[in-house]
Amino acid sequence: MIRLLGIDPGLRFTGWGLIDVDGNRLKHIADGVIATDSSDLVPVRLKILHDALTALLELHRPVEAAVEETYVNRNGAATLKLGYARGVALLTPALAGVPVTEYAAKTVKLAVVGTGGAEKAQMIMMVRRLLPGAALKRADAADALAVAICHAHHRSSHLAWSVANAAVGY
Amino acid sequence: MIRLLGIDPGLRFTGWGLIDVDGNRLKHIADGVIATDSSDLVPVRLKILHDALTALLELHRPVEAAVEETYVNRNGAATLKLGYARGVALLTPALAGVPVTEYAAKTVKLAVVGTGGAEKAQMIMMVRRLLPGAALKRADAADALAVAICHAHHRSSHLAWSVANAAVGY
Repeated sequence: MIRLLGIDPGLRFTGWGLIDVDGNRLKHIADGVIATDSSDLVPVRLKILHDALTALLELHRPVEAAVEETYVNRNGAATLKLGYARGVALLTPALAGVPVTEYAAKTVKLAVVGTGGAEKAQMIMMVRRLLPGAALKRADAADALAVAICHAHHRSSHLAWSVANAAVGY
Repeated sequence: MIRLLGIDPGLRFTGWGLIDVDGNRLKHIADGVIATDSSDLVPVRLKILHDALTALLELHRPVEAAVEETYVNRNGAATLKLGYARGVALLTPALAGVPVTEYAAKTVKLAVVGTGGAEKAQMIMMVRRLLPGAALKRADAADALAVAICHAHHRSSHLAWSVANAAVGY
């Protein structure tokens, strides 16, 4: 059984979610949102995000983390701010020795709902169905659990692939 | 006398420069570039950047840091990557308890060359003139020293302003 951390980063709200994976079985552990105050200076907000993620990593000890590749079709300044939060979401697990994998939003939807073009409401419904007990106070937490589920699926297919290839002598 | 760290962040190359400021006098301490390999995973590259900046902060003990607000008129993916590096450049001093100030490129040029529309070559020449002994192996290091110089100027005017206002009873 392994524990995974999913992160949906944003400077204002960063969703996070923890699941346990045992073969094909998924279990919800915890989820939530890290909020920072837009009236604070950016370095202060990034430190709050980093410290909160570090506390989660220390408390729950996930062995791997997954981060959603965020959408960038906004203006340059908004994309840059998203980049700050995403940089911290990629750095913080790395500093704790936890490998981080990135997934495109489309890949996450495909893994959770079965179609890359799924609506937000549909994805939240599937996260609730797959992980009974999830709090999901904000959509960001559902997105974070979704990327953790996506990583669980891809991880096991990678493992299956490795085993299959080992069997045929790769 | 106070020591300042200037940072010009980028995922591929991050320029850095350290100066000592004593009233109106500036002294070059060190400068260089932190490079990361584009064939490495992004979290690994961000950790290398973070670790290198942390080592500089520990070795040189600057009391304040300044980061240049990078230009964003590129495509979304490039802006996002720039955001990662800039997020780490803003976070790392904050983690070390060093206050970070951000300056627009225009403000930096204005402080160093006297015009917000200065050419790159002109700025490098002024950095060389203001800080004899600077290595400047790459333009990124000159940009980092330039933002440190800019912070030195703004810092002293803020101080002068505070003193002036204190004198008139603010």
